[in-house]
Amino acid sequence: LNPRLEPLAGARRVISQCRHLLSERGEVSGTRRADEVLRAYQALDRPALVNFLSLLATEFSPPAAEVRRSADAYCSEPSAANLTRLQAAVESPRQELFRRLNMARGGMQALIEMRRHVLLGVREHPEWVALDADLSHLFRSWFNRGFLSLQRIDWSTSAVTLERLIEYEAVHQIHGWHDLRRRLEVDRRCYAFFSPALPADPLIFIEVALTKGIPDNVQLLLDPKGPLLEPAETDTAVFYSITSCQEGLRGIPFGNFLIKQVAESLQMEFPRIRTLVTLSPVPGFVDWLHSAHFNDASRPLPPGLRLLSEAATSGQDVDVRLCNDLKHELLELCAHYLLHCKQHKAPLDPVARFHLANGARLERLNWMGDTSTVGLRRSLGMTVNYSYRLDDVERNHEAYAKDYQVLASRRLRRLAAVVGGLPARRQLASFTTTKSTIRMPA
Amino acid sequence: LNPRLEPLAGARRVISQCRHLLSERGEVSGTRRADEVLRAYQALDRPALVNFLSLLATEFSPPAAEVRRSADAYCSEPSAANLTRLQAAVESPRQELFRRLNMARGGMQALIEMRRHVLLGVREHPEWVALDADLSHLFRSWFNRGFLSLQRIDWSTSAVTLERLIEYEAVHQIHGWHDLRRRLEVDRRCYAFFSPALPADPLIFIEVALTKGIPDNVQLLLDPKGPLLEPAETDTAVFYSITSCQEGLRGIPFGNFLIKQVAESLQMEFPRIRTLVTLSPVPGFVDWLHSAHFNDASRPLPPGLRLLSEAATSGQDVDVRLCNDLKHELLELCAHYLLHCKQHKAPLDPVARFHLANGARLERLNWMGDTSTVGLRRSLGMTVNYSYRLDDVERNHEAYAKDYQVLASRRLRRLAAVVGGLPARRQLASFTTTKSTIRMPA
Amino acid sequence: LNPRLEPLAGARRVISQCRHLLSERGEVSGTRRADEVLRAYQALDRPALVNFLSLLATEFSPPAAEVRRSADAYCSEPSAANLTRLQAAVESPRQELFRRLNMARGGMQALIEMRRHVLLGVREHPEWVALDADLSHLFRSWFNRGFLSLQRIDWSTSAVTLERLIEYEAVHQIHGWHDLRRRLEVDRRCYAFFSPALPADPLIFIEVALTKGIPDNVQLLLDPKGPLLEPAETDTAVFYSITSCQEGLRGIPFGNFLIKQVAESLQMEFPRIRTLVTLSPVPGFVDWLHSAHFNDASRPLPPGLRLLSEAATSGQDVDVRLCNDLKHELLELCAHYLLHCKQHKAPLDPVARFHLANGARLERLNWMGDTSTVGLRRSLGMTVNYSYRLDDVERNHEAYAKDYQVLASRRLRRLAAVVGGLPARRQLASFTTTKSTIRMPA
Amino acid sequence: LNPRLEPLAGARRVISQCRHLLSERGEVSGTRRADEVLRAYQALDRPALVNFLSLLATEFSPPAAEVRRSADAYCSEPSAANLTRLQAAVESPRQELFRRLNMARGGMQALIEMRRHVLLGVREHPEWVALDADLSHLFRSWFNRGFLSLQRIDWSTSAVTLERLIEYEAVHQIHGWHDLRRRLEVDRRCYAFFSPALPADPLIFIEVALTKGIPDNVQLLLDPKGPLLEPAETDTAVFYSITSCQEGLRGIPFGNFLIKQVAESLQMEFPRIRTLVTLSPVPGFVDWLHSAHFNDASRPLPPGLRLLSEAATSGQDVDVRLCNDLKHELLELCAHYLLHCKQHKAPLDPVARFHLANGARLERLNWMGDTSTVGLRRSLGMTVNYSYRLDDVERNHEAYAKDYQVLASRRLRRLAAVVGGLPARRQLASFTTTKSTIRMPA
Repeated sequence: LNPRLEPLAGARRVISQCRHLLSERGEVSGTRRADEVLRAYQALDRPALVNFLSLLATEFSPPAAEVRRSADAYCSEPSAANLTRLQAAVESPRQELFRRLNMARGGMQALIEMRRHVLLGVREHPEWVALDADLSHLFRSWFNRGFLSLQRIDWSTSAVTLERLIEYEAVHQIHGWHDLRRRLEVDRRCYAFFSPALPADPLIFIEVALTKGIPDNVQLLLDPKGPLLEPAETDTAVFYSITSCQEGLRGIPFGNFLIKQVAESLQMEFPRIRTLVTLSPVPGFVDWLHSAHFNDASRPLPPGLRLLSEAATSGQDVDVRLCNDLKHELLELCAHYLLHCKQHKAPLDPVARFHLANGARLERLNWMGDTSTVGLRRSLGMTVNYSYRLDDVERNHEAYAKDYQVLASRRLRRLAAVVGGLPARRQLASFTTTKSTIRMPA
Repeated sequence: LNPRLEPLAGARRVISQCRHLLSERGEVSGTRRADEVLRAYQALDRPALVNFLSLLATEFSPPAAEVRRSADAYCSEPSAANLTRLQAAVESPRQELFRRLNMARGGMQALIEMRRHVLLGVREHPEWVALDADLSHLFRSWFNRGFLSLQRIDWSTSAVTLERLIEYEAVHQIHGWHDLRRRLEVDRRCYAFFSPALPADPLIFIEVALTKGIPDNVQLLLDPKGPLLEPAETDTAVFYSITSCQEGLRGIPFGNFLIKQVAESLQMEFPRIRTLVTLSPVPGFVDWLHSAHFNDASRPLPPGLRLLSEAATSGQDVDVRLCNDLKHELLELCAHYLLHCKQHKAPLDPVARFHLANGARLERLNWMGDTSTVGLRRSLGMTVNYSYRLDDVERNHEAYAKDYQVLASRRLRRLAAVVGGLPARRQLASFTTTKSTIRMPA
Repeated sequence: LNPRLEPLAGARRVISQCRHLLSERGEVSGTRRADEVLRAYQALDRPALVNFLSLLATEFSPPAAEVRRSADAYCSEPSAANLTRLQAAVESPRQELFRRLNMARGGMQALIEMRRHVLLGVREHPEWVALDADLSHLFRSWFNRGFLSLQRIDWSTSAVTLERLIEYEAVHQIHGWHDLRRRLEVDRRCYAFFSPALPADPLIFIEVALTKGIPDNVQLLLDPKGPLLEPAETDTAVFYSITSCQEGLRGIPFGNFLIKQVAESLQMEFPRIRTLVTLSPVPGFVDWLHSAHFNDASRPLPPGLRLLSEAATSGQDVDVRLCNDLKHELLELCAHYLLHCKQHKAPLDPVARFHLANGARLERLNWMGDTSTVGLRRSLGMTVNYSYRLDDVERNHEAYAKDYQVLASRRLRRLAAVVGGLPARRQLASFTTTKSTIRMPA
Repeated sequence: LNPRLEPLAGARRVISQCRHLLSERGEVSGTRRADEVLRAYQALDRPALVNFLSLLATEFSPPAAEVRRSADAYCSEPSAANLTRLQAAVESPRQELFRRLNMARGGMQALIEMRRHVLLGVREHPEWVALDADLSHLFRSWFNRGFLSLQRIDWSTSAVTLERLIEYEAVHQIHGWHDLRRRLEVDRRCYAFFSPALPADPLIFIEVALTKGIPDNVQLLLDPKGPLLEPAETDTAVFYSITSCQEGLRGIPFGNFLIKQVAESLQMEFPRIRTLVTLSPVPGFVDWLHSAHFNDASRPLPPGLRLLSEAATSGQDVDVRLCNDLKHELLELCAHYLLHCKQHKAPLDPVARFHLANGARLERLNWMGDTSTVGLRRSLGMTVNYSYRLDDVERNHEAYAKDYQVLASRRLRRLAAVVGGLPARRQLASFTTTKSTIRMPA
């Protein structure tokens, strides 16, 4: 036996089971068979899985001859009938395979996990693009926003679901059940979108703190020993963390509604609260700063900024003292980055993109608003408040949707305008990147 | 104002709203806009609706030029990339429109109702085929069996749902709440499939009577004043009515699982019950008989049969005495019809197709098993028991799925073999029809 | 066999089973035994039941010798220890018997039903007072308001519960499911108190109509074909029917909270609705009128009033024309009756007692507000609006609780003051009765 | 201000509020007032609480004069009417006060907590007996077994409830969420009794392990890293921990049913499992051994046993080697203790009392079955299996209920018979105690 052939043999066996499942005319035994295929698939080790995905990408495609025939027919006569025939001809049998796998216990989770693998490996295996296309197509139907429900999560929620929060939280890690419990106390709120296809597993969740005044520091908010406020005494709702839970659903749009619905729900419960803000990181800032350094060798960054950006992007600890020495430059640069740096026409910063698209405006930049190791590395300790005013949200959102208008407070606009005497300003402004250091809702 | 233009103008207004909804880049206002479009659509009167559907069928198709370009590219180089591009090019923008309409309150019901209109009118408006294709495609994903749940329905079920049973029951009409209540008593069971997309609205439901012995007469079962049995005394479960509720979901496969799951659920609750049978109509028999008469003028039906088949198919009352005079001929013909008459390779009778595909076998033909006006007209008063033996169901189902094998009791096979000396036997046997007089699960 | 001994023998058998159940030291078999006793008890026919209750009233009393000993001990030394001993000595073993019967399936319903029998027969069987005392004592604990929950009832409520509404509604009969459905439409609300001890069975429920302006006629409200209003267009909530469901719980206090909680719930849902009124009958009026006639022979009622009161109280149809002829006298008398006629210190009318104790005030008297046969017989067609103003409810309630103050609108006070030139005014005013023609919450 | 008067003053203020709440005729404001009283009561510090309870015990007793009058009346004529009057006269107004406090939010928990205080302090404050009597009387009605429901607890249960398990577990401490999760895995079951009065708070719960064979060692069962078994492979259900959660409900009977219902539920889920056993401590053994030493100075325990019993009862660590040296003596003595030592007529050991009363029999004594520090101190490392055979449970239970028959396996009977040559055997056997080192269900 040639062990190097093994992964391929294992993959081929499961592919053959898939073909069997798909050819099945009878439906009574479908669920059982789908279960078997799924178990076999999930038992594949890493190399076999890679082989399996590559086979899947090529073997369950629509038959080329029929596609060509239908395409020819349409080209010579683009009638409705010929279009319908062409549509049917080009649909991958894979889609029906995926629909049948969804009948197995745990089928949906497995398909989401499959797409996660696909997204991670598609650069290396370009043929997997076909898998991504088919899975995305199905997910767009299955996770249609019409099916999602916003649910409040609190200490009476099932442990199954709460455990997922601990596991998924990407912005400010939850350190166990004790930490979680503080985040679900009377002066906190947590909301999530759920799909009936994954009833105990949140798709995206948002954590809210009820505070007096707009906070600038996230450590104070997160401190498990921080004082409990009476909700009646608070005047501000702070969205301090938003997490997209399922990497396999990246790009499937459902996140944008969450903020608006949560804001409405909070207003219903606390009519007195008029201020809704975020306390957000600026996850693209250090990358932008760092790339500027490399991209424009003729006008290098001043040494301090260069040191900081190098440390932050290479995962080393950031020197707080040096940060503080450069406070003004950093605040101005960051304001400039948030307001003026673009990826195509949209803001370069992924968090800014998200909130501005949702109808928020840039409100305030906070110095040393997140002094955790991660916070320093992520945004050199800066945090930003985006504010949501319910009356303006829709108008802001339309303005952004139409021409990517970036709304900001006067203070921030002034700060962003200061930038001068710095090297490579124009280059910085025009630099674009696609990397984002935090998982953000699509 | 030209009133004859009105329907078209109204339709055009809604089409324009649809285009607006679809072009919407921002998502925050999507739900509200989807709501508005839906209300406008639902306010269309009949003529405007017809106009709307025809516009919808033509206007939201994929752009021909891009389809052609992609088709050309694929034909000259059938690569994976070109296939993916072609797949994207041929998808109707309508699908995204439907997905967005699903975000509106009541969106799913409206889409199901839209397909009902489409199915009713597609013969007259062949261009609506494109609508059917797009809606079916989405429904196959949305109503995937992996999402459906089997729920027991009883007197503690919500009135919203119970009211639907009364409305939907197609085989043996439910005469109000009093009648319904009898059908949910201790010696009855009712199960339905529900989708999370329609939480209070059953997709298909089955009514079961617990009896002593296999019943042959449906009137006795249905009598609201019939005696209540202690479930512990019963030995047989009779599936006496199965109803597909949503005409707009015709052809979307989910019905076949119901019987098997119900049978398993009953066995769990009543381990002593070993016999599971149906008490079914033979809805295609009179049509077959009647068509035989016309199709083979050289060998006409005997006058009595001709009279009966004419009365039954033209909706007149059926002469019971005449039936009784022809009892033997009718039983033999009906057995012959059930066992040997085909549509392509499958049984001609839609109810037979359904149960045999589910793994049942033909057990017994009952004379005057349904003497209601409808029962006489539908099957000249005959009923048939299909039996489900849990141990054989899967094997039977596979045998049928493979080569349409029709399993029947020895008694029925003998009865079916008698047919001889009758005109047009062979023609009758080969006659095919697509008409079915009762709504059957797909 | 002497059949006249039979009832007694049957009763004795069940009594003996009760004794067995009570003596049972082991608890494992308790539920099974309680079930058996309950079935036997429920199988008793009417005469046997009477015998059983009488035996129960005498046989499970505390042992007289021990009571006497404890009483003596307490009298000679009224210490805490002697009090505790006396308390233990006087508790009927019946209470423990009832607590054990509650373990049986349907035990609670059976005990409530038992008290209903007791209340109906206690006048004839004075010894049943002891049963009433023990059952009331338990019910006051079991139906403590701390356990009750207010639930909204609508068309999505279980048929089990809805069926009870149809059965229980005492003020304006519900004519089947069709009628019920109208009462649960978008412009209606229905709320009920439930106990966890009877989860599907309401204790008391209230029906509310959302209207424009204060209605004076109940037929318009009840008409199943009456127009549906958009809740957003309405400005008034009308409590048009309140029904205590369980006669066996008469006198157990829980009704008073219902109105206040319902009012608060309505205000939450419809902040715009500022007017909350009832549309109530005046059930004690004709009795009062009629008795006045007999009680004061020297000053007889005028003939018209006498005729009307005789017809109404003897269950004959009421002559509407005669009513209309006497409109002014009747309105004045009725206002006088509502504001000034007392039973002890409280208003004579049971409905007035209920609403005034809840913090309402008398608002308006409506001529021909209920022209149904029952309505004419009950109140000669008159209805009355009691109004609840949330800001005043508590103050009104305290005022009533303190000295039975009857609050009324100026218009009603003037109307009530008119009464003059009528015979027996003072006598009428001081007449008291205990009969009430409708079941009212305690 | 004299601070030493403060506790009394605070207590008096709350007492006065209680009196106000009780005198309240109106009911509308009752809930609000009950809330206020409860908050004030809960704000009392320890010394004030003691004062409050003592005042409560004396001030809300029935008025002595009326009790005496009613007692006199009954003594001179013990009629039903006089009995009813006496019963009414002796009921403490406290009971109505407690019923009204139950209307407050959290009222029930507060009353249970109050009884906990009373039970802890009643020895020091004998007048509190009256409080215990009134609270017990109400709790016996409120926690009547007819209201309790058995619910399965697993990882999908609410965190609120799971957190209580961690807090309450008294037999084998749960070390945080990680440990809890192992106890809710596929080869574990957990069931609890809940009252609708405390919907998220278990009254008593039982932890079950599914195993192969009867385990003798509890550490292996509890090891969070122990291997997971497939439920289908197991043949034994082990009740390894039973915890009564509410100390304030001590003596209120509801625990006995739990085991039987859990056993039936397990048999339904796993028909193959025929062996149901406990793995229990012997919590009274060391006390008995130790007391024997002191109680019979003339025949002292052998030095080794004395050392062990002294260490165990004084809370010092137990010398395992010494235990092992005395293995045979200890096993024999323990068997003797379990089978023959009595408190009145019942077994001296509280856990034995509980399981034997429930219909179990003594099956096996395990050497070093619990080698934790607590386990050694509690039972010198021994554990015992009680076995439940569903077919025998009721018979065993009746036998025990009738004459306290102790059923045991032959092996155990033999072991218990060995005891001889030991000092004070008979004395040991007759020694009685009321101390129990673990909280056991009543």
